[in-house]
Amino acid sequence: MVSVVKRLFVGRPLRTDRMGEVLLPKRLALPVFCSDPISSVAYATEQILLTLALGAVFLSLAVPVAAAVVLVLVVVVASYRQTCHAYPSGGGAFAVSRDNLGEQAALVAASALLVDYVMTVAVSVTAGVVAVTSAFRELVPHTATITALLIVLLALVNLRGARQSGRVFAVPTYGFVAVVLLMFVVAAVRAVTTGLPPSDAPILSEPPTVHTGGILTLALALRAFASGCTALTGVEAISNGVPAFEKPKARNAATTLAVMGALAAVLFTGITVLALEIHARAVPSGSPSVLSQIGASVFGHATVLYYLLQATTAGILILAANTAFNGFPTLASILAGERYLPRQLHNRGDRLAFSNGILLLAVTAAVLVLAFNANIDRLIQLYIIGVFTSFTLSQAGMVRHWKRELAGTTDPARRTGLRRAQAINAVGALLTAVVLAVVFATKVPHGAWLAVVAMVVLFFAMRSISVYYRRFEAEVSAPGGLPTLPPRVTAVVLVSRLHQPALHALALARATRPDRLDAVSVEVDEAETRTLCRDWERRGIDVPLLVLSSPYRELVRPVVDHVRRLRQSDPAGVVTVFVPVYVVTRWWQNLLHNQSALRLRARLMATPGVVVVSVPYHLGRADQGWLSEVDIAAPRHPEPTRRTTPTP
Amino acid sequence: MVSVVKRLFVGRPLRTDRMGEVLLPKRLALPVFCSDPISSVAYATEQILLTLALGAVFLSLAVPVAAAVVLVLVVVVASYRQTCHAYPSGGGAFAVSRDNLGEQAALVAASALLVDYVMTVAVSVTAGVVAVTSAFRELVPHTATITALLIVLLALVNLRGARQSGRVFAVPTYGFVAVVLLMFVVAAVRAVTTGLPPSDAPILSEPPTVHTGGILTLALALRAFASGCTALTGVEAISNGVPAFEKPKARNAATTLAVMGALAAVLFTGITVLALEIHARAVPSGSPSVLSQIGASVFGHATVLYYLLQATTAGILILAANTAFNGFPTLASILAGERYLPRQLHNRGDRLAFSNGILLLAVTAAVLVLAFNANIDRLIQLYIIGVFTSFTLSQAGMVRHWKRELAGTTDPARRTGLRRAQAINAVGALLTAVVLAVVFATKVPHGAWLAVVAMVVLFFAMRSISVYYRRFEAEVSAPGGLPTLPPRVTAVVLVSRLHQPALHALALARATRPDRLDAVSVEVDEAETRTLCRDWERRGIDVPLLVLSSPYRELVRPVVDHVRRLRQSDPAGVVTVFVPVYVVTRWWQNLLHNQSALRLRARLMATPGVVVVSVPYHLGRADQGWLSEVDIAAPRHPEPTRRTTPTP
Repeated sequence: MVSVVKRLFVGRPLRTDRMGEVLLPKRLALPVFCSDPISSVAYATEQILLTLALGAVFLSLAVPVAAAVVLVLVVVVASYRQTCHAYPSGGGAFAVSRDNLGEQAALVAASALLVDYVMTVAVSVTAGVVAVTSAFRELVPHTATITALLIVLLALVNLRGARQSGRVFAVPTYGFVAVVLLMFVVAAVRAVTTGLPPSDAPILSEPPTVHTGGILTLALALRAFASGCTALTGVEAISNGVPAFEKPKARNAATTLAVMGALAAVLFTGITVLALEIHARAVPSGSPSVLSQIGASVFGHATVLYYLLQATTAGILILAANTAFNGFPTLASILAGERYLPRQLHNRGDRLAFSNGILLLAVTAAVLVLAFNANIDRLIQLYIIGVFTSFTLSQAGMVRHWKRELAGTTDPARRTGLRRAQAINAVGALLTAVVLAVVFATKVPHGAWLAVVAMVVLFFAMRSISVYYRRFEAEVSAPGGLPTLPPRVTAVVLVSRLHQPALHALALARATRPDRLDAVSVEVDEAETRTLCRDWERRGIDVPLLVLSSPYRELVRPVVDHVRRLRQSDPAGVVTVFVPVYVVTRWWQNLLHNQSALRLRARLMATPGVVVVSVPYHLGRADQGWLSEVDIAAPRHPEPTRRTTPTP
Repeated sequence: MVSVVKRLFVGRPLRTDRMGEVLLPKRLALPVFCSDPISSVAYATEQILLTLALGAVFLSLAVPVAAAVVLVLVVVVASYRQTCHAYPSGGGAFAVSRDNLGEQAALVAASALLVDYVMTVAVSVTAGVVAVTSAFRELVPHTATITALLIVLLALVNLRGARQSGRVFAVPTYGFVAVVLLMFVVAAVRAVTTGLPPSDAPILSEPPTVHTGGILTLALALRAFASGCTALTGVEAISNGVPAFEKPKARNAATTLAVMGALAAVLFTGITVLALEIHARAVPSGSPSVLSQIGASVFGHATVLYYLLQATTAGILILAANTAFNGFPTLASILAGERYLPRQLHNRGDRLAFSNGILLLAVTAAVLVLAFNANIDRLIQLYIIGVFTSFTLSQAGMVRHWKRELAGTTDPARRTGLRRAQAINAVGALLTAVVLAVVFATKVPHGAWLAVVAMVVLFFAMRSISVYYRRFEAEVSAPGGLPTLPPRVTAVVLVSRLHQPALHALALARATRPDRLDAVSVEVDEAETRTLCRDWERRGIDVPLLVLSSPYRELVRPVVDHVRRLRQSDPAGVVTVFVPVYVVTRWWQNLLHNQSALRLRARLMATPGVVVVSVPYHLGRADQGWLSEVDIAAPRHPEPTRRTTPTP
């Protein structure tokens, strides 16, 4: 049943040798990796206006703030292009930091990125749903539910594999870019001819006007700038995803990055200008969005083009989360491969995607959306603090990288190129560090502390896991030489009555030829024990039967105590405990059996030198394996073991 | 941790040989077994008035209805006294029905009783809480929560064992009887001297007056009678509990039953007379209760005696549920002993009480109370239909019982006695059958259908379990002869790398001397497999290593397929699969290991002829059992098995 449902949604498993098929050409890589930074223009302007609206007179600050955001975007894109070239095998902040700044810095970068990928999903999908509710206001009360369902849908698409996703995502991404550019053209024409009508958003009660003054103005501008920097999230994804590009990987990735940067800068600038032009009003709950207000003003209400704008906005935003659905599982897999996260995150699933990482991301983001009731203004406070942490570490690492390269190069032309690259990264590192400081100072008091806590927890969790796996590795690594046999094997067969399951267990224990073999029964009911002993005697079973008294009517403890005593009397030996277990055909039948066997197994497994053998007895099946062919007393001669090693 | 908490609430385990201590003298047996029928006088009158109030003019019917209830009570008590004598080992409806009417009737009786015990707990505790909220109205909104918590408390008291419960319950039971009798005296004196003030209950909007008319009057009277019969629940408990009495058990039980019947009849009659005298008004939500109104009228508001009445009422009602906490687990244990219920219900727990039955009862009753929001009027509709089902079957069975006895007796004096007993039970059977018909007709439309459904489900569940256990018994019962050895044992050791856990598993597999021993590895990562093969070769391990390809990167399926192929090639043999399993010291470390091993074990256990041996490797412990003492190739000579059988 489960597997049928899985096949239906996720598709048939793919063979490992079909790995090569999931490489992406540039035109598909752009929508897969860049929908996040491009789509964030849909809310970055709004976040600036929302902050500045706290002091209505400051709206004129929007232009310099937006310009600063574009400047940072250009510098970061330029800086990351260097990374693509330097790390063609995938140069995420984690890899770069570890290579150049050491393990601690790398783990800080990794924690920051993991948190931010989750936020990307939560914020982008929520903003996408807001684009829909801006057009259809009656859906506003269901925002959180719709958002969570869409996150689940995204997870399914990604579980099917990357190639398919690329195609699915191309249409809304390119569509969004085309519609917004068209909007700019129409707006320009109308502005010159008929003029643009002002925003149709309802005027809320005026917010309290903040006192004007140098420091307060600066503080508000910085907060607006920090909010506007959401436009930069997701740039990291391309440098992490270089291996997914078609060859030449590094060059194609760098080109894609440049195209993305140019598009984002143009769209962001145009939308900001238009928002100021029509006096758009940012609404804290998010609906109607500023972009929706612009669209309604330029294209007119209820026109086909307005709905097309909302549809493509929703499309690119919802799918922007896909950047994170590519980045998060890849990073988690790298971290798991390096033993910083559980190993389950390392492996590719049925469809060659990192299934466990995808599921983990989707669940975390969905829980966050539901906990914050899809309030985009509160969610966005947790955002981008991680991105700029990793940006700063990554660029700083690149500066060191080029320094090392320079030390090993004498060719003057090559050295000039390296120096240029180093300069670009140095500017990038400095600028992103400044932005990080601004973001930290302005956002932590408004909710970003939660993101910081999550990062700290992740950091220490990964350190603990790493320490654990390293100790584990040291402990299990075999010294030279051949495996050794236990000097003595004592077998204990648990018997309650003399029935087929007990005889099976007894026969199997005999077949393992232990040095000593006891049957053990716990006396809970005196009459039953007497019957057992009489049957034992009558059948003439030549295995000693020990009866353990149990004054407190327990089954588990007397057996555990007995086994421990056996162990103490022979500390170097091994005790194998054979427990008959019933394998039933219907789930409810489990309620009628095996309760004690399960508890006994758990307790005995915790005792060193003890091995529990559950001997299954299949109820309701004629086919029980071996039966009644050789007497227990008959001698057997094991055939000589062979030695063959297959060619690897 | 868990065990410390358990000790704190439940107490230290008691040895089986202290069983004799939990026998009860009559003065303690009365509160333990009879608080239910005695306490139900606190709400039986109210239920009659509530029904009759639907047609306000019919309140005069209360007297004949109450008289009918007392008549039934006397007949049933007389009838059950015969049962105590006939079945000194415990003559619940189940035992009597099975002895005399066959299995089907017995299971019907058992289902009915189990449902009714649950209802006793739910209704009694709720009514007890209503006695408190009648005095302290501000608690009314928390009725359901308080009720559920009290049920949990009762479960804890009962898990500690019956003797303690007896003492705890004596005070409120005898206290209630004393206070109510005192109230009768005070009421009589005041009625003759100053007169009694009328009820203080708020007058609700008058219910619609039903048209007077012969049939409607009769229907209402019958419904009121059915509700009043709640006074009879719990009479069964004594006949079920005869073995818990001190010797002479049967005689003591019969005496206790008679005392209980007399007390209940007196209290019920007195309360009904007083209720009519002061014009008490039954309130559907339950608070203030009719008894509280009487107390306020007789003793005066906020007097010590009024609060004492409410306190003892609450006490006896809450503890009345104890009748069910004695009856339900005992009956469940008998049923489990006869293989009609899962065996876990059969055994006595740490404190010699039937712990699992107590827990099952408490959980079911608490869920019911919360689901019905502790609405006593709705809960009571589900009540007593089961009691009269079992009464009828039990009395009918007794008639047959005496008939059989008569057939085997010739002594005329003894025959007269038997005939008298048979006559009493015949009257009982007839009367309870009539009452059952009335209850069924008047209560099923008002919610009792749920109780009927529960009884039907229980009936078929018990039949299925019985059939299952019987088949199981037939299947596992050993034929004569000695246990047999499997003709061939093929051992498979699962290896991922050549580390200590794998070597342990390999050594243990070797020690079991299989006819064939293979190491098996699944190739998920080509490089890892190559390393394994090289290590294998270099160490010169003389066990063949098979590499299974896994194009879909699965670990479990290739192993399962391989093991199935081995089985098919040798259907009579047994395949033992050795899987290294890590035993960790902290719970979270389980997330880092063993995921595949668990799934593999589950899949392999379902395959006949396959035994899974989980070889534990204890991480972080120096003490690993056997280590490096004997080479795997060294021969071992098992010592001859000894044959000893302990004296039973």
